[in-house]
Amino acid sequence: MAKIGIVGGTGYTGVELLRLLAHHDDVEVAAITSRAEAGRRVDELYPNLRGHYDLAFSEPDAALLASCDVVFFATPHNVAMNLVPELLAAGTRVVDLSADYRIRDAALWSRWYGEPHASPELLSEAVYGLPERHRAEIAQARLVACPGCYPTAIQLGFIPLLEAGLVDPSHLIASAASGASGAGRQAKVDNLLSETADSFKAYGASGHRHLPEIEQGLAEVQGGPVAVTFVPHLLPMVRGIHATLFARLNGTTDLAALQNLFEERYRDEPFVDVLPTGMYPQTRAVKGANQCQISLVVPQDRDTVVVMSTIDNLVKGASGQAVQNMNIMLGLPENRGLTQVGLLP
Amino acid sequence: MAKIGIVGGTGYTGVELLRLLAHHDDVEVAAITSRAEAGRRVDELYPNLRGHYDLAFSEPDAALLASCDVVFFATPHNVAMNLVPELLAAGTRVVDLSADYRIRDAALWSRWYGEPHASPELLSEAVYGLPERHRAEIAQARLVACPGCYPTAIQLGFIPLLEAGLVDPSHLIASAASGASGAGRQAKVDNLLSETADSFKAYGASGHRHLPEIEQGLAEVQGGPVAVTFVPHLLPMVRGIHATLFARLNGTTDLAALQNLFEERYRDEPFVDVLPTGMYPQTRAVKGANQCQISLVVPQDRDTVVVMSTIDNLVKGASGQAVQNMNIMLGLPENRGLTQVGLLP
Amino acid sequence: MAKIGIVGGTGYTGVELLRLLAHHDDVEVAAITSRAEAGRRVDELYPNLRGHYDLAFSEPDAALLASCDVVFFATPHNVAMNLVPELLAAGTRVVDLSADYRIRDAALWSRWYGEPHASPELLSEAVYGLPERHRAEIAQARLVACPGCYPTAIQLGFIPLLEAGLVDPSHLIASAASGASGAGRQAKVDNLLSETADSFKAYGASGHRHLPEIEQGLAEVQGGPVAVTFVPHLLPMVRGIHATLFARLNGTTDLAALQNLFEERYRDEPFVDVLPTGMYPQTRAVKGANQCQISLVVPQDRDTVVVMSTIDNLVKGASGQAVQNMNIMLGLPENRGLTQVGLLP
Amino acid sequence: MAKIGIVGGTGYTGVELLRLLAHHDDVEVAAITSRAEAGRRVDELYPNLRGHYDLAFSEPDAALLASCDVVFFATPHNVAMNLVPELLAAGTRVVDLSADYRIRDAALWSRWYGEPHASPELLSEAVYGLPERHRAEIAQARLVACPGCYPTAIQLGFIPLLEAGLVDPSHLIASAASGASGAGRQAKVDNLLSETADSFKAYGASGHRHLPEIEQGLAEVQGGPVAVTFVPHLLPMVRGIHATLFARLNGTTDLAALQNLFEERYRDEPFVDVLPTGMYPQTRAVKGANQCQISLVVPQDRDTVVVMSTIDNLVKGASGQAVQNMNIMLGLPENRGLTQVGLLP
Repeated sequence: MAKIGIVGGTGYTGVELLRLLAHHDDVEVAAITSRAEAGRRVDELYPNLRGHYDLAFSEPDAALLASCDVVFFATPHNVAMNLVPELLAAGTRVVDLSADYRIRDAALWSRWYGEPHASPELLSEAVYGLPERHRAEIAQARLVACPGCYPTAIQLGFIPLLEAGLVDPSHLIASAASGASGAGRQAKVDNLLSETADSFKAYGASGHRHLPEIEQGLAEVQGGPVAVTFVPHLLPMVRGIHATLFARLNGTTDLAALQNLFEERYRDEPFVDVLPTGMYPQTRAVKGANQCQISLVVPQDRDTVVVMSTIDNLVKGASGQAVQNMNIMLGLPENRGLTQVGLLP
Repeated sequence: MAKIGIVGGTGYTGVELLRLLAHHDDVEVAAITSRAEAGRRVDELYPNLRGHYDLAFSEPDAALLASCDVVFFATPHNVAMNLVPELLAAGTRVVDLSADYRIRDAALWSRWYGEPHASPELLSEAVYGLPERHRAEIAQARLVACPGCYPTAIQLGFIPLLEAGLVDPSHLIASAASGASGAGRQAKVDNLLSETADSFKAYGASGHRHLPEIEQGLAEVQGGPVAVTFVPHLLPMVRGIHATLFARLNGTTDLAALQNLFEERYRDEPFVDVLPTGMYPQTRAVKGANQCQISLVVPQDRDTVVVMSTIDNLVKGASGQAVQNMNIMLGLPENRGLTQVGLLP
Repeated sequence: MAKIGIVGGTGYTGVELLRLLAHHDDVEVAAITSRAEAGRRVDELYPNLRGHYDLAFSEPDAALLASCDVVFFATPHNVAMNLVPELLAAGTRVVDLSADYRIRDAALWSRWYGEPHASPELLSEAVYGLPERHRAEIAQARLVACPGCYPTAIQLGFIPLLEAGLVDPSHLIASAASGASGAGRQAKVDNLLSETADSFKAYGASGHRHLPEIEQGLAEVQGGPVAVTFVPHLLPMVRGIHATLFARLNGTTDLAALQNLFEERYRDEPFVDVLPTGMYPQTRAVKGANQCQISLVVPQDRDTVVVMSTIDNLVKGASGQAVQNMNIMLGLPENRGLTQVGLLP
Repeated sequence: MAKIGIVGGTGYTGVELLRLLAHHDDVEVAAITSRAEAGRRVDELYPNLRGHYDLAFSEPDAALLASCDVVFFATPHNVAMNLVPELLAAGTRVVDLSADYRIRDAALWSRWYGEPHASPELLSEAVYGLPERHRAEIAQARLVACPGCYPTAIQLGFIPLLEAGLVDPSHLIASAASGASGAGRQAKVDNLLSETADSFKAYGASGHRHLPEIEQGLAEVQGGPVAVTFVPHLLPMVRGIHATLFARLNGTTDLAALQNLFEERYRDEPFVDVLPTGMYPQTRAVKGANQCQISLVVPQDRDTVVVMSTIDNLVKGASGQAVQNMNIMLGLPENRGLTQVGLLP
């Protein structure tokens, strides 16, 4: 049994890690830290965990964490980058769910996050934890930077097109929408039910922090610059991301060929599911499950391809993908602990 | 007092007409028809109308309708086109909320609606009821075809850009989302709360019936062909449309200039509201109100402009716009009966 | 035109007052105060008000407020009781939407609100603003204490039974549920969409602050002590209160007689609507409207009567009732500005 | 591996059985029938099942079903009672999720369901599938009648009080609310999102079909007649039942004693969880999980006890309890396949 630590366990990605690891056969959660809730039982804060854990939040104790085989950071940005160097030095491997190690360029990171990076020397070592792109490196990594939720859904939708060189990389469009849990468990007026239920709006269109991450990843795929217009929206629901992607096709507009391309690309991927032509993804089908479901359309057989990509932002977009990365790092079957069926209806 | 008839009053656009006309000073609802509910009080089916109407649904009686000054068709397509000729002959003016007279080309209409048009001779006479484009013709019209909900939100967002010739008309993208009331009050499994709440999906991306209407309207503005990639989505809420529009700018990418363009274009429009830069529209701000709120972004100062446009699909997207058209036709102040404030929160 | 001031205008009852007064013919909002938002336009915070008001929040200025004919307090408790004496002294009349003057017994108030009352000398003068009970006193009042949202729905449902002496007053049960807007616009984790959507729970069953207000009101009706078991619940939606009331009948269990009793009691009440037998109230029918809809059942013809009572917590449960009280105080038609039709669907 | 058949698999309890059995180690779903969808893959209708099943709906074939060890009926009432006799004769055991065998008195059944019972001779043999009351009989049963969703939540809340003789059985009150999935996957206007979202209402207060089942079960516990006033309500959400129960205490009003009583009663029950005093149940904590969470309050230390009881109507209220019964019948660990953690947030 591998020993697991979770830093920052009171947020939604923290409780989701606990949910997913509750019946994982090969790991044991040894510590979950929270300064604010230290001493409180996790199932008091999260009553869905009653009967599944006999565990309390603890102060973030360096020695305890260093005794773990793998530590997850389920924290806001700016926490992991200060603690990870010490853990790595102690031989503990790290899966960071925050944004701290996603961007390779420290200056770019600083521009978007408004402060200097605390451990820039690790940026080149950190492996971007999108298994569909970097499985081999993840297996060897000491430090994995889990992708953001939007970047997961959007990259998985564009990757096959860019790999095959089929679309204009200078004019990629991503219109995406997320459930409110993506904003985390923070006391903000903007996230009240009374402010967000029964309404829909875009936000961050002039520049969302996930944009540089998306463009970095897609530029690597393309082997050259890409420009993505990314507009996120807030859905009046708790979980789920739906990305609607638009790209201008260079040549063929044959849907069957594109469908075949996607199916081949993801044939061996356990957690990316290309739907049959004509079946559209819906977020509820992957609710609670570590799945990305993808579908393709070429409207009116014109020159624009539309890719629809859905995930649960807390699972394939965060904690599920983190567990997937951990499984790869530990040499376990990749789907261990990740066989949950989507909660539909 | 003008005498008003409503055909097909049991659907959501019917009850919404009654809500808006309840305290309209210059008109009186003389008849509301429904074969299925004939004889039943309207406030029994719609308890929000209790105390506001002493009225029952009646059989669709041609003489009664012909005695009205204006008749609204709040019906599915394929009803108005059979009854309108007779009403016009009797001197009654018609505001059709259905799709029957929106498309000028009878062959095109037939291709999308799957049947021959019953009164194609009226297609050239019918005025497209988007007051922001056709106010003068509406004033004189015998027959007004109210725009669809998506077409209203999408056209109002693209019109200033196309009029000014600022964008590539061959690659317009409209990613839009609607509340479930847009699907009407029909007993379908797909529209159950258990099927649609707490989920989000696209639909009709390969070809939605609003596409030809949108392209027809925008081509007229452009003075040449346009191609719109239109992807509608279903929101887990009752009312509201949010359209997120993308267009590639030919030249300037100066947001201030674009903002000024939109403000000028809609300065005198009572029901189109260009928000200040940085303020994003949200559907709840126009819930229950005959308003379209619009905002502009040019992300990263690149070559793509994003326009966000919101309406209440049942008001500015249907019944409110219908009343606006009626006011224009009757020479009344355009906002008569349409001063409702959006229900926020 | 009467001059109106609103203290504490950034909360939901404040914006709702503005919505209702936007087109009230006989009053004008002269000032709306907010320390936190002073100087900011009201329609920047509340975009539904765009086009309806040219008004900014101002510092709470005593002279300005004293120059108003009527001042509304749309504040948390503990604000009005400090400012009202000065306003009354200046001849301004006050409608308080907060809890400060609802309880006549200062000691009881202190027990439930955890602090001494700042102006207990006014408690006996304050008129409880339930027009269906105290219309004549309201007309003469300098200070009206608007009932809480739950107390409005619950008292209107029990009053006819207690007035007629038909039920056991020692065992009244009120199981009620409220939309999240009842908790106000405060940044609390508990009120996030991610915490409250897609879930349902009771709260405050061991003692909610509305309990002493309910029992005070019903004891006056009964002319003796009453005991109410009151369990509020939180609904995953924005607006609406539904109270399900249970009482043990002393004698008759004849539903027709009870139905007749309720219809007679509320026959002349413009804002209480007793539904026909068999028609159950639903909160959406009164959404945005100053209405209470009530229905009665005697299940299985046994000895327990069930009364269902619905209001919009922000309208008949707060701001609408406040305007109704203001109309009465100013000698205006009681329904002036309050003819909105419920937003259904 | 036991061979499992499911009759009527297209409804919500059918897909929920598939979700729960997907990774059950000791059983295999051999057949799932649906006349309407015969030949269609289950994961086409329910895309959450993609990757978990390679199975299509089949015609209801008597021989195929008879070859199963256990057959679930996930059907509306009036199906099982016609097919069960033949299956029992073939040696197949049956878990019926419908109402057909819940009521022991055939005349009473007929009164509430409006038709004669087709196999009344089995009513006395059928075991009521509430393991917390009938575990031993279930283990031996050929035919188990799974309780309804409301009856599960309500009985589990009242049982300890009645067993201990602490409350007046003639005046039990159950105010309960259910998510819309309780109404099943039927195309009815009343269940549309546009009709039910953003609203709350009671229904069936004059007589719901779960009432006789509740009273039958509680009368057995009480050892004498009981009278329950049962008012169900419809929640604007998909899953979850919350029952708020009220009973008049005969003597003690000591909450600690009552708390202890409940904890003792359910100490060894794997799927009933008595929360610590002060912690209220919320439906989201049991969403997707086979759990009933219960809490107690004695408001104001008066003579009325309030019990709050929550379940997921599709799990402990239907398919989860059905699997629990199957496990007991097959001598498997009772929680096999039922260790899902509630999906919170």
